[in-house]
Amino acid sequence: MASPAVAYARQNQQRFLSELKDLLRIPSVSTLAEHKNDVQRAADYVASELRRVGMENVEVIPTKGHPLIYADWLHAPQMPTALCYAHYDVQPPDPLNEWITPPFEPAERNNNLYARGAVDDKGQLWMEVKAIEALMRGHGGELPINVKFLLEGEEEVGGESIADYIRKQKRKLKADFALVCDTELFAPDLPTLCVGLRGLVYTELEARGPKTDLHSGMYGGAAPNPFFALVEILSKLKDESGRILIPGFYKQVKAPSPLELKAWKRLPFDEEQYRKKEVGSKALVGESAYSVLYRTWARPTLEIHGMPGGFTAEGAKTVIPARARAKVSMRLVPDQDPNDILDRYQAYIKRVTPKGIETRIKLWSKGQACVVPTDNAYIQAATEALRAVFHQETVFIRSGGSIPVVTDFYDVLRIPSVMMGFGLPDDNLHAPNEKFHIPNFYRGIESICLFFENLGAGS
Amino acid sequence: MASPAVAYARQNQQRFLSELKDLLRIPSVSTLAEHKNDVQRAADYVASELRRVGMENVEVIPTKGHPLIYADWLHAPQMPTALCYAHYDVQPPDPLNEWITPPFEPAERNNNLYARGAVDDKGQLWMEVKAIEALMRGHGGELPINVKFLLEGEEEVGGESIADYIRKQKRKLKADFALVCDTELFAPDLPTLCVGLRGLVYTELEARGPKTDLHSGMYGGAAPNPFFALVEILSKLKDESGRILIPGFYKQVKAPSPLELKAWKRLPFDEEQYRKKEVGSKALVGESAYSVLYRTWARPTLEIHGMPGGFTAEGAKTVIPARARAKVSMRLVPDQDPNDILDRYQAYIKRVTPKGIETRIKLWSKGQACVVPTDNAYIQAATEALRAVFHQETVFIRSGGSIPVVTDFYDVLRIPSVMMGFGLPDDNLHAPNEKFHIPNFYRGIESICLFFENLGAGS
Repeated sequence: MASPAVAYARQNQQRFLSELKDLLRIPSVSTLAEHKNDVQRAADYVASELRRVGMENVEVIPTKGHPLIYADWLHAPQMPTALCYAHYDVQPPDPLNEWITPPFEPAERNNNLYARGAVDDKGQLWMEVKAIEALMRGHGGELPINVKFLLEGEEEVGGESIADYIRKQKRKLKADFALVCDTELFAPDLPTLCVGLRGLVYTELEARGPKTDLHSGMYGGAAPNPFFALVEILSKLKDESGRILIPGFYKQVKAPSPLELKAWKRLPFDEEQYRKKEVGSKALVGESAYSVLYRTWARPTLEIHGMPGGFTAEGAKTVIPARARAKVSMRLVPDQDPNDILDRYQAYIKRVTPKGIETRIKLWSKGQACVVPTDNAYIQAATEALRAVFHQETVFIRSGGSIPVVTDFYDVLRIPSVMMGFGLPDDNLHAPNEKFHIPNFYRGIESICLFFENLGAGS
Repeated sequence: MASPAVAYARQNQQRFLSELKDLLRIPSVSTLAEHKNDVQRAADYVASELRRVGMENVEVIPTKGHPLIYADWLHAPQMPTALCYAHYDVQPPDPLNEWITPPFEPAERNNNLYARGAVDDKGQLWMEVKAIEALMRGHGGELPINVKFLLEGEEEVGGESIADYIRKQKRKLKADFALVCDTELFAPDLPTLCVGLRGLVYTELEARGPKTDLHSGMYGGAAPNPFFALVEILSKLKDESGRILIPGFYKQVKAPSPLELKAWKRLPFDEEQYRKKEVGSKALVGESAYSVLYRTWARPTLEIHGMPGGFTAEGAKTVIPARARAKVSMRLVPDQDPNDILDRYQAYIKRVTPKGIETRIKLWSKGQACVVPTDNAYIQAATEALRAVFHQETVFIRSGGSIPVVTDFYDVLRIPSVMMGFGLPDDNLHAPNEKFHIPNFYRGIESICLFFENLGAGS
């Protein structure tokens, strides 16, 4: 591991950590209006450091919400271009009284750094910035590849501005791949790359029955009840085994490769522990022919999130409501097309809508699944970097959720994302006593250095 | 029709109407705190008139809410005792700008008296009071039967006080039947007695899945979703034809007599008109082997009124909620026992609760159906009185709803109710421009006079 960048990073660990603490002291809580200036201050702190370490064209870009940060360094012709993403905003710190040390006064305990944003995502953002510094210093003021930065301050509040910006600035953001540092290791000391996310179609299904709310005593037995209609329709969407009944729904589903499946089986995963500690239910459900990881990472699902309408307050009211709604989403996997799925869903709902009822479907969002093949050159280069740092084989996992910015990189910019994250499952994201394991902060910096060096060497 | 009471009533029609207008000027809106004194004033006005016409032991009984009024006259040994019920509170008058004349300034137009409470229920209460005056005056200061009054001021807000009072004062309220004047004619000029009400079991079914709300991306496909569990359970409660699938649910159902069914077929009822004007839906639903009136009056039903839980605000949130609930009620018919039905419902829910889910059932209310046979002596005496007044045969209808006070008279006092009402289907109850057709006010007074005279004569 004769990397001049890694050598520099090792010599400067204490300073890097100390700078991160300064960033963590800025309470950049994006959801609270009273912290608007703090979010701006955090953006300025990051932008000025990007300038200091040698990035060019650094901009703090005003938006309707909180600023975006752009920067680039594009002096490596013939070399690939990375688009580095992270976010500098944080979740609110409540409940405050559960913090052992105050959320915005970073404290070290047991080799962990405790603070709001330590791992989500300021610590991981700082890894990217410090890797650039180490690469510049280690390579005589040059980077081994071209690098762009796009950082946001609204990740915890929906990320609307970055989504707009990506759509408007396709040329400016042109790159070969994105580096996204906002995820975690599957287990401690286990180098992990997330190579797949499920897609999403989120709808609201409305059923209309009588023209106004009716008394269920007077009209029960003759008037169509939109809640019963929804129950009838929803019960036909998925069977008891978890299989979705919309015709053609599984037609395009592409299974993970045998190699990927084999790798998942080797992951340290205790299903009983997962049921008890994470889910906390009497049993797990779903398609029994597939493992839990397979079901949540690579099988589509259909869920109901809420059913607004009618009488929901305390007590009893005998109403047949005029309307009722159900919030229904579908998670998609490769190669399901969200538009095709939406069409099939709509056609099927129309077909199973019972007599006397009108249904309408509202679309709230849609995005396709994205999966990067593990033999992708960028994934390969990242894998080698991780191996060198952790002295362990990298595991490739997926996530059942959707990371909108990754979907936008995939859909709009047409580039794959290398989701390289160094958090741990017990890092208390969004909760009191959020932490970042300090050795993972250093490993992150080194991994990024090696990753970019590998790409620069054309390995 | 040589009734001295009716003769007196006819001579005093204008005064009776004028007194009713005075009562209607008092805005006794029971649900609005700012009208609490007005409700009290209305009670005092009615009580003082009961005293004036010759009723004894008149009490205005304070309660936690609005006062009850009690009165009696018990000097007809060997004769039956009537318990007269009505209510003196009214609905709020909003929206005010839709009233042609102000709601608390009674106005006559086209032989109708317009005011909030005109028909619901001050006008019908006043019929009862004025019938007593006419009977007293026509019979030399005596009544043909024993009479008790129990009037309330909380009918529009749940009637809690009267329910308590009935349970505590069974001896004091002992009677042979109740006269309830708070319903309507099936059609104009068609004398109507309501002889049946459906019972009710109202529950809240809760399903619990994960210990906390989970992200549907991360956990969808493995974590049990309580909304899907409810959908699965509810879809097994009733089939598409409206038939309830709880084993033994129909075991005790007693069909109406062939005579009653034959009579319903003769009622002026236009199903298409009902669908378009009253229900306003694309189609009517329910068990097709039964007519609409049969289905809503004499067949049990099961309805969903609301499904609280999860995410119900505008937009999309990808949550698998820890809990979800459904408000489910069943309307019962003779001779279904609410306790037996509740047991069967609970056992069946338990049986169909899917894997991974716990269900709990909360009972909000229960009451049995009550039906008075049409050959009952009080119904017969009322029928004859109506025939004499309307010169038409009386129709016997039922109502699909439940009138709690009638259920209490039946369950607690063990007496049948003669539901003799003189409203019309277009009287705008609970709506702007509520009215009472003035000839029906007079017919009501005369019908009660003849009804009590018939009973006094032992007819």
